[in-house]
Amino acid sequence: MTHTSHTAHVSDAQRRVEEDLLDRVVASFDSCENPRLKLLMQSLTVHLHEFIRDVRLTEDEWNQAIDFLTRVGHITDDKRQEFVLLSDTLGASMQTIAVNNEAYEDATEATVFGPFFVDDAPEVSHGGDIAGGAHGQPAWVEGTVTDTDGNPVPNARIEVWECDEDGFYDVQYADNRMAGRAYLHTDDQGTYRFWGLTPVPYPIPHDGPVGQMLQAVGRSPVRAAHLHFMVTASGFRTLVTHIFVDGDPQLDIGDSVFGVKDSLIKAFEQQPAGTPTPDGRDVSEIADGTWARTRFDIVLAPAKTKTT
Amino acid sequence: MTHTSHTAHVSDAQRRVEEDLLDRVVASFDSCENPRLKLLMQSLTVHLHEFIRDVRLTEDEWNQAIDFLTRVGHITDDKRQEFVLLSDTLGASMQTIAVNNEAYEDATEATVFGPFFVDDAPEVSHGGDIAGGAHGQPAWVEGTVTDTDGNPVPNARIEVWECDEDGFYDVQYADNRMAGRAYLHTDDQGTYRFWGLTPVPYPIPHDGPVGQMLQAVGRSPVRAAHLHFMVTASGFRTLVTHIFVDGDPQLDIGDSVFGVKDSLIKAFEQQPAGTPTPDGRDVSEIADGTWARTRFDIVLAPAKTKTT
Ligand SMILES: [Fe+2]
Ligand SMILES: [Fe+2]
Repeated sequence: MTHTSHTAHVSDAQRRVEEDLLDRVVASFDSCENPRLKLLMQSLTVHLHEFIRDVRLTEDEWNQAIDFLTRVGHITDDKRQEFVLLSDTLGASMQTIAVNNEAYEDATEATVFGPFFVDDAPEVSHGGDIAGGAHGQPAWVEGTVTDTDGNPVPNARIEVWECDEDGFYDVQYADNRMAGRAYLHTDDQGTYRFWGLTPVPYPIPHDGPVGQMLQAVGRSPVRAAHLHFMVTASGFRTLVTHIFVDGDPQLDIGDSVFGVKDSLIKAFEQQPAGTPTPDGRDVSEIADGTWARTRFDIVLAPAKTKTT
Repeated sequence: MTHTSHTAHVSDAQRRVEEDLLDRVVASFDSCENPRLKLLMQSLTVHLHEFIRDVRLTEDEWNQAIDFLTRVGHITDDKRQEFVLLSDTLGASMQTIAVNNEAYEDATEATVFGPFFVDDAPEVSHGGDIAGGAHGQPAWVEGTVTDTDGNPVPNARIEVWECDEDGFYDVQYADNRMAGRAYLHTDDQGTYRFWGLTPVPYPIPHDGPVGQMLQAVGRSPVRAAHLHFMVTASGFRTLVTHIFVDGDPQLDIGDSVFGVKDSLIKAFEQQPAGTPTPDGRDVSEIADGTWARTRFDIVLAPAKTKTT
C-alpha cells in the first residue's frame, strides 16, 4: 500500500479541533431512526473526514472537487452515466461486487455491471444471433448453467450484451438502434448456445470529466475485451459477470475498471475461413469467413448466500 | 466515536480478494506524474474502498448512491450548488476549513464559505447600508481589522453578505435582485462600519436531494443566524468567516453545516425604538423603529502561515 497519512505533524490542539468537528458531525446522525442509514451516513462521514485530514485537502482542491462533481453531474443523462464511470474507474463498483458476491464453492465469479445494459433487449432462440446488425467476427458461444452440485438449471434467463467491432455499444449511437444484445433461456438440460461477436477492447466513454481524470493520472480508458452476462434463475443468486478473451493484450496493460478475474478469461478459438459452423450457418460473407468459438459453463450460487 | 467496522467476520480468503483489488486500484495511479494528484487519488481510493468494505455496501445501496449523486448533479446550476450543500451538511466543508486555517495566535477563526457569495456585489462607503432593499431589522456593525500584534490593517477588503428577514439570499429570488451584500475597505485606522440586517436563522435549500437526506436522518436544515464576512488584505491569510447571534436558539439545536465556533458568537444588542443611531440615520420607519448593534474586531493571520 503506497498510501501514507500526512497528519503525523499536526499539533495536538489542531488534532482536537478536527476530531471534535468530526464527532459533532457523526453525532448529528444519532437520531436517525433507520439504523442502517445511520450506520451508512456515520461511516461515510468518518471516511470522508479521514480523507480530508490525511491529505490535508486544500481549499483550492476542494473547489476543484466540487467543480469536477458538477461536471460529472451535468454530462450524466439517460444514456450517459458518468457517476457509474467514476465509480468503475475508482474500483468502487468492483469492490461493491466483491463484497456482495463472496466466493461460494465453485460458483462463477461476478464482475462489474457497467453502464450499457438495457432492459428491453430482444429474445433470441437457441443458436440465434444477438448481433442484430452490429459488425464483428461471429463467435459461437455455448455452455451450461448448473448449480454447485452440477445439476442443470433449466429456464435460467441469460442476458448478454457487447460492443461492436468499433468498440461501441448500440446505445452510444444516436440512431436508437438495438444491437449486440439479447436474452435467452437455458433448455431442459441447462444448456444454451448463441451467435455473438468476438469481443474487442474498447475505451469507456472518455470525452468527459472521468476521461480527463484518467488522462491526468496517466491511465488508459480501455477495457479488456469482454462479453457481458447476467444470469437469473429462481432460487439462485443473480450472477452479473463477463467473459474475457484469452490472449487480449489489454489483459496485461490493465482493465480500466478492474473487472478481470482469471477464472473469467476464456479461449475464443479462431476458426479459419471455410470451417463448418456448429449449426450450419453460412458466415462466408462476414470477417473473411473466419469465426471463433468459446465455451462458458456457468455455476450459480444459491440465493441468500450470506456474504459475511 | 459511534462508528464500528463490520469487516470483523469476513473470511481470510475474502479479505484477500478485497485487499488485492484495492491494491490493484491504488497501483493504477502509480504512473501519475503529478505527485500531489497521485497522493489525492490513492488516498481517496483507499478511504472509498474502506467505506464500502466497512459497511458491506449492498448493490442496492450502491445504486441508490448513484441515483442520489445523479439527482444532486441535475439540480445543480449557476445559482444552486447542491454539491456544496452536500459537502456542507456532511461537515466536509468545515473540515477542509479546519485543515487549512489552523489556529494562529489570536487570529479570528474561519468558518464555511457557503453557496451564496457572488463576485460583483456593490461597494458601500463607511456607514453605508448593505441591505439594498432587503427587509429586516437594521443592525449597525463596526469593528477593526488588525494583525496579531494589534497593528491596524488599512485598506483591507471586507465582503459581507446575509439573508433577508424571510431567510432568503437575493440569489434565491427569481428577479435577479442584488441585496443584502456589499464590500467596503478599512480606513487608515483599520476600522470599518456599516448598516446590515440583524441575522435570522434560515434553512439551507432543502427541496432537493440533500434536503431529502436531512429529512431521512432526522436532521434540521436550519442554519444558526449569521452574517458572512470575507476579509482580504495584502500579506495576510484570507479570512472567510461568519458572526453568529448570541442567544439564537438554533445555536443549541445545532447548525446544519457545523459552522459555529464560540469565538464567532457576538452580542447583537437590541436598541428600543427611538434610540439615536451612531450616524444619525432615521430608522423609525423600519422594524417598529428598533435596531441592533454589534462589534466584530477582526484579527488576520499572516499569509503563508504553514498549517502543519
Ligand atoms: Fe462492457
Ligand atoms: Fe449563509
